[in-house]
Amino acid sequence: MGSVVGKLSMGQNTLEVPVALFELNRKRIVEKLQPIKNNSVILLQGGTELPFYDTDTTYVFRQESYFTWCFGVTEAGCYGAIDVLSGESILFFPRFPEDYAVWMGPLVSLADFKTKYGVTRVYYVDELDGVLQKLNRDSLLTLRGVNTDSGFAAKEATFSGIEKYNVDNATLFPVIADLRVHKTKYELEVLKYVIEVSSAAHRHVMRITKKGMYEYQCESEFLNYCYKIGGCRHVSYTCICGSGTNGAILHYGHAGCPNDYPLRAGILCLFDMGANYFGYAADITVTFPVDGRFSQDQRLIYEAVLAANLAVFKAGKPGVSWSDMHLLANRVLLEQLKKGGLLKGSVNEMMQANLGAVFQPHGLGHFMGLDVHDVGGYLPGYPERLDRPGLKSLRTARVLEENMVLTIEPGCYFIDPLLNKALTSPEQSKFLVPEVIERFRGFGGVRIEDDVLVTKNGIVNLTKVPRTVEEIENWIAGKEDDRKYA
Amino acid sequence: MGSVVGKLSMGQNTLEVPVALFELNRKRIVEKLQPIKNNSVILLQGGTELPFYDTDTTYVFRQESYFTWCFGVTEAGCYGAIDVLSGESILFFPRFPEDYAVWMGPLVSLADFKTKYGVTRVYYVDELDGVLQKLNRDSLLTLRGVNTDSGFAAKEATFSGIEKYNVDNATLFPVIADLRVHKTKYELEVLKYVIEVSSAAHRHVMRITKKGMYEYQCESEFLNYCYKIGGCRHVSYTCICGSGTNGAILHYGHAGCPNDYPLRAGILCLFDMGANYFGYAADITVTFPVDGRFSQDQRLIYEAVLAANLAVFKAGKPGVSWSDMHLLANRVLLEQLKKGGLLKGSVNEMMQANLGAVFQPHGLGHFMGLDVHDVGGYLPGYPERLDRPGLKSLRTARVLEENMVLTIEPGCYFIDPLLNKALTSPEQSKFLVPEVIERFRGFGGVRIEDDVLVTKNGIVNLTKVPRTVEEIENWIAGKEDDRKYA
Repeated sequence: MGSVVGKLSMGQNTLEVPVALFELNRKRIVEKLQPIKNNSVILLQGGTELPFYDTDTTYVFRQESYFTWCFGVTEAGCYGAIDVLSGESILFFPRFPEDYAVWMGPLVSLADFKTKYGVTRVYYVDELDGVLQKLNRDSLLTLRGVNTDSGFAAKEATFSGIEKYNVDNATLFPVIADLRVHKTKYELEVLKYVIEVSSAAHRHVMRITKKGMYEYQCESEFLNYCYKIGGCRHVSYTCICGSGTNGAILHYGHAGCPNDYPLRAGILCLFDMGANYFGYAADITVTFPVDGRFSQDQRLIYEAVLAANLAVFKAGKPGVSWSDMHLLANRVLLEQLKKGGLLKGSVNEMMQANLGAVFQPHGLGHFMGLDVHDVGGYLPGYPERLDRPGLKSLRTARVLEENMVLTIEPGCYFIDPLLNKALTSPEQSKFLVPEVIERFRGFGGVRIEDDVLVTKNGIVNLTKVPRTVEEIENWIAGKEDDRKYA
Repeated sequence: MGSVVGKLSMGQNTLEVPVALFELNRKRIVEKLQPIKNNSVILLQGGTELPFYDTDTTYVFRQESYFTWCFGVTEAGCYGAIDVLSGESILFFPRFPEDYAVWMGPLVSLADFKTKYGVTRVYYVDELDGVLQKLNRDSLLTLRGVNTDSGFAAKEATFSGIEKYNVDNATLFPVIADLRVHKTKYELEVLKYVIEVSSAAHRHVMRITKKGMYEYQCESEFLNYCYKIGGCRHVSYTCICGSGTNGAILHYGHAGCPNDYPLRAGILCLFDMGANYFGYAADITVTFPVDGRFSQDQRLIYEAVLAANLAVFKAGKPGVSWSDMHLLANRVLLEQLKKGGLLKGSVNEMMQANLGAVFQPHGLGHFMGLDVHDVGGYLPGYPERLDRPGLKSLRTARVLEENMVLTIEPGCYFIDPLLNKALTSPEQSKFLVPEVIERFRGFGGVRIEDDVLVTKNGIVNLTKVPRTVEEIENWIAGKEDDRKYA
């Protein structure tokens, strides 16, 4: 709609995202680069439409995250430049033929795009080379660097004629990736919104979930809530709706395991889902009993994970190492499992034997922002990835700083290949109580994932879902209303 | 789940797709190729996961359509071979490392994949070269050809070592594309199912749509119905939810126009949406008044389009040219617009002046199957694309044959640039009654799109939505129940 100048939104009741958000990001990158590379211009290339294979049908377009961070542009096929010397921002839009209007909608004028996105100047893509030549800066800063979660390289801008320029593709990446780690007040507003929408959607799903439903029906209800109520057309990742044993499949829900099991009586539901609003992600996991009441064993494991989650909330603050938080969560979980009779012996020795990774093979959490697994986890000058089980899956080993947004997501899973390996391992088997472990075969898993903000004083939870056993049972029973979580 | 051997489904109440569907398709292609290229083996490469740019998050995987047609495989990263000489079918699955089980779910054994998809033999992808060498056929048939809707080339199979083989990439494409045009009894069952689910979802949306809602809320309700009730995780194309003027934007709903308008009182809703089930598409458009009652002008245009739609149903049968059906729909529409006072003069002369394309710039319809705009529209030996306005947008000019599935989707739109051009055109302006045309500025449009099957005796409508003005008004008012359409 774009009916309110300077705001992007999906209409009434949805959040208005100010384009000042992107303006501030541009200002931040210019300030960082002026001392290093003053006579330069940043050039970013936005995403393009993705067809289904060779057909003329496309996925609903999702913008590339660095491009969103700088410009907020939701259209495909654009370029954007930021003049480091002057701070000016320039957007380039595709020039469409006349009959575009018939198929795709009224042609938006450059003047209207300029107003919509609040940039200094606006041109067509075919004018890019000319505009950059006229700007005549010493170097063109493009984005080249590896995403440390995927191992894939960022999309480096290119255009016909770029060979004329002095391209520097080394300077930009570490600076912009590091800036993305710290969220601005504008970004925090959007993140809070999308986390609230996702929290409400989870609460809705928790209450309507009943045995006999299929996992994908819960996914569908979540998607509908986020879109219909929250204006979120996209989710940030494929919904993971693991019931029972499937809860122990960390990335369940993909096309090979498409959330297609019926919910059986007595099982736990582990639902990991998060909406996306104008590029910003949420990532929340709830675990609850399909029948609305935890069994004794379910309560045992759930409360063990919750204890780990709460310990991190208590200990986390600026200056604390994220790897230490991971180890803390491991330690608390192991202590609880020992208390519950699944383990025996010294928890210190268990930690040395990496027993934590048997029950929680994934990392404690990750940065979150425009990407659900947000960038900046491993950058030059910051701690490197560790090589121990569990810790090697950690998406960052950095020290916490103010305005970081992360997930805290300890879990406890009963995964046959990992249990079997531990039961035959000379270092690990001595801590396991086999007959109790056997009782939990096929249990699935518990994960409690919150989206949090690091402030000066500690960690603030932005997630608004029932978390204790009592809260969950009351919520499902309809004994609590939304006001508690609003 | 795959709990029923030889059937693919999303569980209770959803359709079980027999793997015999794909077996029959393989039999058909082998029968066609044996006389041409007996000592050969077909090799197809399935789709791979698509990440969001450089991240480790992916789109929900959608399989490539030729691969689906042959094998029905829903997993990514596979190859499939069909031995033309023996008729044997061989699938190749990715070999995953041990810890795949932790992240993605239990490793499926080759034996289980063999049972699931009912093929002759199953291997890992890394065994492909060896298996093909041992098969030792004279030529390897790969898929190379251009999709005539997109202009993009089909994905040709390739692997390390392929240079050793005598690759023939010319023979397969026209044969398999032509086979895809004629649907088997198995395919018709799946198409009927997905059309029924989509019809029911449209009926649901028609009834809950109210002024003040946003277009995307209607999209969201459609998606939820198709997934939750019908097990359809995907739609076949981006939902087009055009209200009022937006109804005249033929491909409305994309990221640049993301269904983000509120529904104003008095407008028409033009909703073009279709679910997808195990690859098979539906594609249905309904047009209805947001208030539940057609105004006089709305009824005029709606009934003009419906007359065009019905005329095609009456005239269509094997042996009839699709281009002639397009022209018939144009003619009926122009007659109706003349009767309604928007046009004057001879309809014959209007047809010669291509006036139909002013009000309906798109083609009458298209093949539908695994692609919403299905393949085979323009193949060697069949009529070529025509160059006249409207007709040039036709996705096929073929003569109708039994077991073709198509859409019939006449429309009438009031698109300013096209009206302005016509009003100043010496050939076209004389037919327009400007003061009446002006009354319809901003009206938007009407499209009535049915999914149909060509049978020996004529055209059968597979779509089950209210279509006459009376049916629509009664349906929205709740005066009819689902049984009429079930």
